[in-house]
Amino acid sequence: MPKYKEIIREIIQTIEKKEMEQGDKLPSIEVLMEEFEAGKNTVLKALDELEKQAYIYQVRGSGSFVRKHRRKGYVNITETNGLKNSLRDFKLESKMLDLKVIKPTPEVIANLNVEADEDIYYVKRLRSIEGRKFSIEESYYRKKIVPYLNQEIVEDSIFSYLIHDLKINPGFTDHFLRVSTLNKESADLLNLNPGDPTVLLESIFFLKNGEPFDYSKVIYHHEETQFFVQGFSYIDL
Amino acid sequence: MPKYKEIIREIIQTIEKKEMEQGDKLPSIEVLMEEFEAGKNTVLKALDELEKQAYIYQVRGSGSFVRKHRRKGYVNITETNGLKNSLRDFKLESKMLDLKVIKPTPEVIANLNVEADEDIYYVKRLRSIEGRKFSIEESYYRKKIVPYLNQEIVEDSIFSYLIHDLKINPGFTDHFLRVSTLNKESADLLNLNPGDPTVLLESIFFLKNGEPFDYSKVIYHHEETQFFVQGFSYIDL
Repeated sequence: MPKYKEIIREIIQTIEKKEMEQGDKLPSIEVLMEEFEAGKNTVLKALDELEKQAYIYQVRGSGSFVRKHRRKGYVNITETNGLKNSLRDFKLESKMLDLKVIKPTPEVIANLNVEADEDIYYVKRLRSIEGRKFSIEESYYRKKIVPYLNQEIVEDSIFSYLIHDLKINPGFTDHFLRVSTLNKESADLLNLNPGDPTVLLESIFFLKNGEPFDYSKVIYHHEETQFFVQGFSYIDL
Repeated sequence: MPKYKEIIREIIQTIEKKEMEQGDKLPSIEVLMEEFEAGKNTVLKALDELEKQAYIYQVRGSGSFVRKHRRKGYVNITETNGLKNSLRDFKLESKMLDLKVIKPTPEVIANLNVEADEDIYYVKRLRSIEGRKFSIEESYYRKKIVPYLNQEIVEDSIFSYLIHDLKINPGFTDHFLRVSTLNKESADLLNLNPGDPTVLLESIFFLKNGEPFDYSKVIYHHEETQFFVQGFSYIDL
């Protein structure tokens, strides 16, 4: 692991272990250089990356400060780390409802920018948090990039499998969110009534090289879900 | 204006003027250095900032590519530039419903981290897009930081006033989003029915030094609003 990633990992662990709050100050660059036996550029690279991930904010001339990933129970959609990471303090279960290889629908073709004859893994899951029905997820993975999925993977964490087994590193994500209403099938799965409101979150996940590899549509239980989004600095041009 | 900001501005203008698409390649670092008569570090700083703002993504060994701020009509809540910027292709109107100096409620005290006797500007606005009722916004500004507001400012753009007149540069933002239901007063204002679903977006805006200065609660018309969130790279540690 490159040095700057070690520094990132150590700082994240320190913030979490010490339960540091928003505004708490991190050690100075000089202290971090000494502590990690690293050069200035390496420490700066780690701090810039931590800022990009909204773990800290840097104030010119005064140092680096903790930015809190606040409010337990909120799904942080600024992070591209999968739901399981965002809700790691909770018991999360995923039940596979469907898994098959299909040809893409027009909607999938448009969002993944694929040809009509490309093989696509279709996965449908019902997710529960602390035993309560939470969301219904339909995901479309390009088989070219995710060649294999099975029930065990799908019911554990697909993202953890992609990252640790397939060595696929998600790059960035586009999320589209709006209020919709439940149809009978979805309402039955979530123990709600047809016509009840729901948050519909569509996401396109890209590889670091900019290629889209996963398009997902998730319907959330409107009473069980809250979203957290971390916005970034305005450039005053 | 520092050189790297000039480069940022020029690149954003080029992307918008040429209507560049997701994945379109920007000129190489060497070409940008020559074009802007700038050093490598300056060009790299501009590119890093553009990546942080989700205008581009950088692929190691291959260059920088456009990341599209996609789907017209979506409110991009990753940007801290105010609603007016996000929806600049549309006719946006803000009608002032209330403006007064108050002492903070417990909710405001908690979110802005202020004392109970601090002066707070309370602003309530009804916003319309292309003549259609769109959202009801209640905002709480610390008078210590925003010493003056009037109807003209409130009905134009508060953020533009903060940035250009008060020289206040917003830093980062925390957004909390969930589905709620409308009460009679809000339903009447939005031409909807009490009990109809709504997206409730709570936001805390921070200065670059980490101090919160604005807490706002916005209720959106569920049929008129869609949100766009740009998620950032996963760090594979």
